Amino acid sequence: MAHPYYPKTLSIPNYVANEGSVTELLGIFFSIVLLILGAFWFYTGRRCSFLMATRVKLCWFFVCGFIHIILEGYFSLYHRSLVEKMTYLAQMWKEYGKGDSRYVTSDTCIVIIESITAVVDGPLCFLTVFSFLSGNSYRYILQLIVSTCQLYGDTMYFLTEFKEDFIHSEFGHPLHFWFYMVILNSFWIIIPLIMIIDSCVNLSQSQDKCDKMIDKKEKTNKGKKKNKTF
Amino acid sequence: MAHPYYPKTLSIPNYVANEGSVTELLGIFFSIVLLILGAFWFYTGRRCSFLMATRVKLCWFFVCGFIHIILEGYFSLYHRSLVEKMTYLAQMWKEYGKGDSRYVTSDTCIVIIESITAVVDGPLCFLTVFSFLSGNSYRYILQLIVSTCQLYGDTMYFLTEFKEDFIHSEFGHPLHFWFYMVILNSFWIIIPLIMIIDSCVNLSQSQDKCDKMIDKKEKTNKGKKKNKTF
Repeated sequence: MAHPYYPKTLSIPNYVANEGSVTELLGIFFSIVLLILGAFWFYTGRRCSFLMATRVKLCWFFVCGFIHIILEGYFSLYHRSLVEKMTYLAQMWKEYGKGDSRYVTSDTCIVIIESITAVVDGPLCFLTVFSFLSGNSYRYILQLIVSTCQLYGDTMYFLTEFKEDFIHSEFGHPLHFWFYMVILNSFWIIIPLIMIIDSCVNLSQSQDKCDKMIDKKEKTNKGKKKNKTF
Repeated sequence: MAHPYYPKTLSIPNYVANEGSVTELLGIFFSIVLLILGAFWFYTGRRCSFLMATRVKLCWFFVCGFIHIILEGYFSLYHRSLVEKMTYLAQMWKEYGKGDSRYVTSDTCIVIIESITAVVDGPLCFLTVFSFLSGNSYRYILQLIVSTCQLYGDTMYFLTEFKEDFIHSEFGHPLHFWFYMVILNSFWIIIPLIMIIDSCVNLSQSQDKCDKMIDKKEKTNKGKKKNKTF
């Protein structure tokens, strides 16, 4: 049976080619992403007095929440029968599979990474957004945990493919290899790294202030005790 | 070629049986672990005024650092030729492989998990210990990052084996399945979970105090401004 996946020796007996064109599939996806980003950008601008950097950050986690739960959640539920399905999300994964055929062969490592992303990272993204909107003291902690998980998952993704010599796509193909696999996934390496640094700096500043406050109190108490003794 | 690994159909052509007995191999390993734990417990007791819980925590990270860098580092470097080697560490991995044959077949997912553990988690464990000993404001942040990585890695380990129906060991074998795979790995699920909760509680308390301090300052400033205006 002919299929567009690599390596060419791969057997995918139930494969049915997509009905939608690449432009249609990607067009719908990026339009929805832009719509969510735009709506949430507008919402954070009206509702709160956040810095621009914080609004960008919240938009990132908000759109990540949707991608993780809906797109990656769909994959973790239907990875076994994706290749024969014709739903929009199945077509998206069949298209993405051209950049990494592990997505159309239910590769164990990929299925588990994506399932963790959908079940853990997704809800944590929304919880991070909610904690920032409500000024909760867990906001930077959640940002740190979810970004560490995203970075770990995507590092696993890249390194497992690197160890297998990038055999699951046409190496160097501008759309399938470079855009789908390298560029799109690089977002979840670079941005989580920035988010980890940002939360580390903020949490460490708070910890430092508290440590100094405790030190000051201890010194004052010691001073009082001394005054009592002498 | 006969070998003790599962599934029995596995072809491991270069396999050479261990010279050391199970008692010898495990005896040496747990003696070294106990020695490191004992020495570091003694050191933290003499040098600092830590709570007992903090000393237990530091011992955990200290011994984890050694295990990650030496034991798992060895695996990530020599996984391809383990089955024919007779060094102590190779024999340890050949023995452990009886509970999970992915370790003697250079399974991609396992090699990457173990490499990340050796290269990232290992040094981070020592950095966490150092930051607690020096009272650095990054101490709970490092504890949170390294524990999240440990939890992610071990969750991947268990879930990938679960997805493959535990075919890589003799299901239910008391030593190979229960002790090597389930019990030993459970440590890196349960303890990181406790460490994550512990660091979350501590970081959140610091963040909360700082937030209140900032709120108080802002209110005072507003009050001053009002007094000026009226």
